[in-house]
Amino acid sequence: MAKKAVSKKVTAAKYVYLFGKGISDGNASMKNLLGGKGANLAEMANLNLPVPAGFTITTECCTAYFNNGMSYPAALAKQVEDALAKVEKIMGMKFGDPKNPLLVSCRSGARSSMPGMMETVLNVGLCSATIPGLIKKTGNERFVYDAYRRLIMMYSDVVMEKAEGIEPADGKGIRKQLDDMLAEYKTEKGYKSDTDLKVADLKKLCEAFKKTVKKVLKADFPDNAKEQLWGGIGAVFKSWNGKKATAYRRIEGIPDDWGTAVNVQSMVFGNMGDTSATGVAFTRDPATGDNKFYGEWLINAQGEDVVAGTRTPNPLNDDTKNEQNKHLGSMQELYPAIYKELVGIRNKLEKHYHDMLDIEFTIQEKKLYMLQCRVGKRTGMAALNMAMDMLEEKLIDKKTAVMRVSPNQLYELLLPVLDPKEEKKATLITKGLPAGPGGAVGKVVFTSEKAVALNAKGIKTILVREETNPEDVEGMRAATGILTARGGMTSHAALVCRGWGKCCIVGAGELKINEAKGTFSVGKFSFKEGDMLSLNGTKGYAYKGEVATISATENPRFVKFMKLADSFRKLGVRANADTPADAQMARNFGAEGIGLFRTEHMFYGHGAAKPLFFLRKMILSATVEERKKALKELFPYVKKDIGATMKAMEGCSVTVRLLDPPLHEFVPHSDDQKKEIAKALKITLAEFDKRAEAIKENNPMMGHRGVRLGITYPEITFMQASAIFECAAEIIKAGGKCKPEIMIPVTCDPGEIKDQKAIIAEAAAEVAKKFKLARIDYLVGTMIEIPRAALLADRMAAEADFFSFGTNDLTQMTFGFSRDDIGSFLGSYLDKKLLPADPFQTIDRDGVGALIEYSVKAGRGVRKNLKVGICGEQGGDPKSVALCHALGLNYVSCSPFRVPIARLAAAQAAIEA
Amino acid sequence: MAKKAVSKKVTAAKYVYLFGKGISDGNASMKNLLGGKGANLAEMANLNLPVPAGFTITTECCTAYFNNGMSYPAALAKQVEDALAKVEKIMGMKFGDPKNPLLVSCRSGARSSMPGMMETVLNVGLCSATIPGLIKKTGNERFVYDAYRRLIMMYSDVVMEKAEGIEPADGKGIRKQLDDMLAEYKTEKGYKSDTDLKVADLKKLCEAFKKTVKKVLKADFPDNAKEQLWGGIGAVFKSWNGKKATAYRRIEGIPDDWGTAVNVQSMVFGNMGDTSATGVAFTRDPATGDNKFYGEWLINAQGEDVVAGTRTPNPLNDDTKNEQNKHLGSMQELYPAIYKELVGIRNKLEKHYHDMLDIEFTIQEKKLYMLQCRVGKRTGMAALNMAMDMLEEKLIDKKTAVMRVSPNQLYELLLPVLDPKEEKKATLITKGLPAGPGGAVGKVVFTSEKAVALNAKGIKTILVREETNPEDVEGMRAATGILTARGGMTSHAALVCRGWGKCCIVGAGELKINEAKGTFSVGKFSFKEGDMLSLNGTKGYAYKGEVATISATENPRFVKFMKLADSFRKLGVRANADTPADAQMARNFGAEGIGLFRTEHMFYGHGAAKPLFFLRKMILSATVEERKKALKELFPYVKKDIGATMKAMEGCSVTVRLLDPPLHEFVPHSDDQKKEIAKALKITLAEFDKRAEAIKENNPMMGHRGVRLGITYPEITFMQASAIFECAAEIIKAGGKCKPEIMIPVTCDPGEIKDQKAIIAEAAAEVAKKFKLARIDYLVGTMIEIPRAALLADRMAAEADFFSFGTNDLTQMTFGFSRDDIGSFLGSYLDKKLLPADPFQTIDRDGVGALIEYSVKAGRGVRKNLKVGICGEQGGDPKSVALCHALGLNYVSCSPFRVPIARLAAAQAAIEA
Repeated sequence: MAKKAVSKKVTAAKYVYLFGKGISDGNASMKNLLGGKGANLAEMANLNLPVPAGFTITTECCTAYFNNGMSYPAALAKQVEDALAKVEKIMGMKFGDPKNPLLVSCRSGARSSMPGMMETVLNVGLCSATIPGLIKKTGNERFVYDAYRRLIMMYSDVVMEKAEGIEPADGKGIRKQLDDMLAEYKTEKGYKSDTDLKVADLKKLCEAFKKTVKKVLKADFPDNAKEQLWGGIGAVFKSWNGKKATAYRRIEGIPDDWGTAVNVQSMVFGNMGDTSATGVAFTRDPATGDNKFYGEWLINAQGEDVVAGTRTPNPLNDDTKNEQNKHLGSMQELYPAIYKELVGIRNKLEKHYHDMLDIEFTIQEKKLYMLQCRVGKRTGMAALNMAMDMLEEKLIDKKTAVMRVSPNQLYELLLPVLDPKEEKKATLITKGLPAGPGGAVGKVVFTSEKAVALNAKGIKTILVREETNPEDVEGMRAATGILTARGGMTSHAALVCRGWGKCCIVGAGELKINEAKGTFSVGKFSFKEGDMLSLNGTKGYAYKGEVATISATENPRFVKFMKLADSFRKLGVRANADTPADAQMARNFGAEGIGLFRTEHMFYGHGAAKPLFFLRKMILSATVEERKKALKELFPYVKKDIGATMKAMEGCSVTVRLLDPPLHEFVPHSDDQKKEIAKALKITLAEFDKRAEAIKENNPMMGHRGVRLGITYPEITFMQASAIFECAAEIIKAGGKCKPEIMIPVTCDPGEIKDQKAIIAEAAAEVAKKFKLARIDYLVGTMIEIPRAALLADRMAAEADFFSFGTNDLTQMTFGFSRDDIGSFLGSYLDKKLLPADPFQTIDRDGVGALIEYSVKAGRGVRKNLKVGICGEQGGDPKSVALCHALGLNYVSCSPFRVPIARLAAAQAAIEA
Repeated sequence: MAKKAVSKKVTAAKYVYLFGKGISDGNASMKNLLGGKGANLAEMANLNLPVPAGFTITTECCTAYFNNGMSYPAALAKQVEDALAKVEKIMGMKFGDPKNPLLVSCRSGARSSMPGMMETVLNVGLCSATIPGLIKKTGNERFVYDAYRRLIMMYSDVVMEKAEGIEPADGKGIRKQLDDMLAEYKTEKGYKSDTDLKVADLKKLCEAFKKTVKKVLKADFPDNAKEQLWGGIGAVFKSWNGKKATAYRRIEGIPDDWGTAVNVQSMVFGNMGDTSATGVAFTRDPATGDNKFYGEWLINAQGEDVVAGTRTPNPLNDDTKNEQNKHLGSMQELYPAIYKELVGIRNKLEKHYHDMLDIEFTIQEKKLYMLQCRVGKRTGMAALNMAMDMLEEKLIDKKTAVMRVSPNQLYELLLPVLDPKEEKKATLITKGLPAGPGGAVGKVVFTSEKAVALNAKGIKTILVREETNPEDVEGMRAATGILTARGGMTSHAALVCRGWGKCCIVGAGELKINEAKGTFSVGKFSFKEGDMLSLNGTKGYAYKGEVATISATENPRFVKFMKLADSFRKLGVRANADTPADAQMARNFGAEGIGLFRTEHMFYGHGAAKPLFFLRKMILSATVEERKKALKELFPYVKKDIGATMKAMEGCSVTVRLLDPPLHEFVPHSDDQKKEIAKALKITLAEFDKRAEAIKENNPMMGHRGVRLGITYPEITFMQASAIFECAAEIIKAGGKCKPEIMIPVTCDPGEIKDQKAIIAEAAAEVAKKFKLARIDYLVGTMIEIPRAALLADRMAAEADFFSFGTNDLTQMTFGFSRDDIGSFLGSYLDKKLLPADPFQTIDRDGVGALIEYSVKAGRGVRKNLKVGICGEQGGDPKSVALCHALGLNYVSCSPFRVPIARLAAAQAAIEA
């Protein structure tokens, strides 16, 4: 081992990659090694864009650093020195030089963006040796001491405290103390802004800061440029394993062993006076996708000032102006030449990267520098519009366009939106933060109770509140949209609504609500309860009156995009639907059939009273005769229910699953209902209770359910099969085509399928005879949701025409996790990283996935054309859809609303394969 | 297909095998083809024993017959004709010949004995053409018409009714009608016995019988020898699929496709007068195993008369005499020469077969014929004694001796028995049916209540009842033995006691019970409540007073036999034991360690009040602090409990499983207990209920249990590990050796083991420090009881020192069967043959077995010496033990009482391998 490690050190080690005009070692394809930032800096330099020179220390070095007990590879020091020398040469300055000192920044850069999760140190290289030289060179003493002040504050926090792991838990770390000192000093002096600080003030502060650092952190602030540099490099590496970064990786599923790169780059300063500036921009509008250059900038500022939000940034150009910033000068107006250069860069970058980019730039004394470019984040709507625009612009090809919208982004596109044409004409009353996507139109209400009450009558409402709290949840669910005066993007209302995908605007500060009176006003407008209001939650705009909404399926861009996706898709997409309305919705969303019709659905919710009554009679029957009588009474309801969905899906496959849940779920508990059933069965209440008690189960999920009901009570299967076949016969008699697919749930042995097939065949023959048909064609398949069924897949396939993986139950049994009961421990499993994700949301590849993989192979080994799908809820989860594609399934079946998501995920899986 | 079938017919078909002096085609090794009876008839003929000649139609022919829509293979007719000709030649008679007619029997014969489950027809070949010749030849007209009468009765029933499937369900078939006619005729004539019937009576009856047959069955009774023969052959074949035979096969696990052979054998007659006889014998005593020739016989009778039980059979010899038959002459006395010949045959057969045989013979006019021999059934005690005797006699070798006792037979040997020496001296008061094995001694009680009451005081009782009913179950459980006056081997008491392995005698008809007075008398003896009584349930003997009992481990034969078995065994056998008493019992029974110590056991039953209180406090704690406090209080109890068992097993491995069950199982329900806990936790009852409600689960078997508790509450694991290590440290400090094995239950991912190992290591280090030990050695392993753990066995093995398959839970999850809830459907699954056995009793080879097989391979692939065992209840099931041997497990662990069974099963598996 030791020997190997040594030889690795000798050969492996190119840890440092230069970037800058004419010296770049890397390019954009080397993200894994250089991190996103480093690779793109190199790429921009390769494109001859004005990138301040620097170098990237690789992610491999980071990994080696951690694997090696937090010590650098031996080769690193020399490589950094060499790189620094080349950077100095290009920049014409020398790091640590008393006369012409070069300052650098140390920034993190992982493979994928982890915004704000790791640390940065700016102005590295300022010390007593270099300060006088820099003052002389810049002629700006205040600038230099301000930079030094910033260095001390940042460095002591990031390098001396956080990286050493001595940050106090109470949040009163060194940074807070220095911030407090600064604030106190300003108060003492009566200064309002940092810019009021004079050179003497800054000098004093720097000295005071250094003393406090020494007192609190028990270490001198380093007064040596090299020492600062290595401190900065180490701190960036260490921040990879900081709390924030670790937590973020867990949420985003980023592996711990990727590591971060460190970018050491020559400093340029946007804060050297009024001819300096700094800014960020998106090459297109990240909210709408409009092909408009979109950005903000600040004159005489460093990057952190833009982020901090203490000053309202100026608009980049006319396209970026809005209510808040329209009074501030745009770069287009103030520096047209530089703006023109930036637009050129924007065009060059988009053409080169074929995507919308998020860029950072600094202007130092009228000279433009590019500090970062990366693919920009965007809303779902923007992603869709950009993909389709760029396809039309021939900037990207069809496959790329399909890959540009993530399936999860699609979710927000499925919500109804305000009709863009109508929205343009509508009266905007205020703007807030876009907390929940989509559009909503309804009557103003001020209380949750009112929202619930009106919702019960089918009236849509907009809940208007100062802010929401957990007591409002019922009302929020009932309302069509939510508008609050207070709260940010992480407020209660925002969190809840984003979770639900509900239209919501928060922090609309202009609202003046008088709940007692039942009114609110905003500017010149005033509203009372019951007035119509319309919200665009994607933008955060509220409109007076009723603005028409359109559904996703009416959005031509969406329809076109989905059609494009379908042209690549290989996996079929069906829907889990139990009602004609759901079936219709599924069809509209592009479902190619029903993969799961749950017979038991008819016993829940509205209209269930009658069939439920007969079902209960059946369940509580003690003899075959009693049961058959109840089944006969139940028959027309089952038939009607199945028939309606079959008709809605005519021409498509409909898979009807036989009764699945444990019967005792349906046993009534109220005295009235108990009496009613007892009376119908002509038994006493005591006898009723005895029978009900007898079917109670300790673990109903593994009890008397699914096919087990059909095995013990064959008449239940017979009734259901008869209902299905009568529906089919009626469609056939009316000249249609129908080949029902009957699915047997909860099987664990091929014998069960054989047993049930015999009963189903008998029902088919009887119905064919009754309807004078030669025969009724049908398929009988099975759910694979019990591990043993998967393990015996070859023998199951010999009996079944198709398999459908019930990944909910299969996950339950494979893990031994009761889905209803995981609340008490799943959180710990995710926190401790024992599981990468909730296996009920994303199929567990290792366990459940292995069973599926085995079953598909074994099943097709016996029945070559075995049709295989899944109908668990993971069928609408993009990662799970990709797995289903990879495992060669024929289709996934998911809830109607998730059908487009599954379609896109399947298309992307096909493109990636 | 058709072509293939034809070619098969041409080549395959030797369907008929001769047997008889000098002509046998077969031998004893051909049981699969010829059935047990046919193979042994051939073998006996090969041994030159007097076997009436005949032929066997093979089981293959039976299978072909059923596969071919119940029609015979084309080649059969000719083969039967040829065989018949050879038999005729040997016997010097001709089948169907008017002058010298040969009669034959048609009997079934499957691979393994199915006593009474299939059909037989005797006297085949008697018809109007042959009757006169047979009369002339035998000079015994009465005999011939009696034989004809029997043929009509048997044939019409078996061939004409049952084989045609037209037997009425009400039991009033043709046989019943003819029986009634016979009875009426005798009543009319004033005859008492069949032997009173004269020739004229028999002639009249035969004619009347034939008319009734025609009327009832709508068919003539066949008056043609050949037609009768083919009818008989067909009826035997068909009886393979009769109700009785099918049900029996299901119980015994005999495959449906084995089929039966048909043996067509020359008739010899034990009913040709007083120099003729028929009998059955065992070459040794099948109840005790004593090396004594044991049999019964009847003069002037056919075999069916012995079975029918209408006459008390004579004893074969002095050894067979008993109270019931000692007045009847033995063969030894009446026919000493023939008896001598039979003893010679007995010796020859035992020497040849190396086993105890069950034989049937007939004497026709002083000539002895052998009609059957087969290995005899025997009790467990007899099996043990015979095996050890025959080993001493050098009749069998050691391996054979071990194979001679089935593990299930061992069960009855484990019960205490009356000390044979004491029993000889005791006063026998009555005999009954041996319904439950073993010996029992106790005070007479007449009611269940009394049995329960005395049992609570530790007083042993014998429950004496007219008969038992389900209300007596509690008393039966409490009593040490049961004695009833009424009921047969299938009565309530017999069924219940056999199930429990409880000593029981039923149907002791001489008992006169006066429950009101609290007395019973039997012959000259009388007893009152409280008097001592002793039962030998294996023999059905009841004794006055107290007879000493001995336990199995004191039985030197048993001990010697087990030692012999162990010499072949490769699989280790451990016990599941949770108390020092159980551990000691397990050790006495030969357990080599504890494979499963369940920590939670201490919270059930006597002495649980205190620890349960602290456990409940812990469970209902809301904060880590509360929980830690309760755990601290609980600690000494856990330590004491584990320590005592560790000490009892010193020198052996003890595997302690961490807390497994869902916590809410322990939540108290009574108001007093709730108040007590609430008070201890200083919370209100309402708060108590809230907390209790929060931990309630829908499917607790798949809920917050096992390792999941340790993941969410690491302090629980820490406490348990500390207790285990302190016990170990104390043993080590006292100079002993101890290397505890800690087992983590309900794991589904290697990360869980890693997580828990860290906590356990911390506890080990802390305890080592406290006890001033350099370190404490221990192993950490995992249960494999969740399918995912099995599927990830390679990765699990990387973390775990050992695997123990928890086949109870693994079966639950693999099948999705909740063990508590299968009552409602398992019966249907077994009835419909969907499952071969209750998978909670015998490991399911296909599903659960496949997971075990995979896990062992995958686990050992990663950790070569991975120790693998099972600790589910199937660990004591012989078939499951054999599977564990085959899969290469290191050990099985079972309940202490089952340890010897597992040892024997493991030895047999090793010998068979």
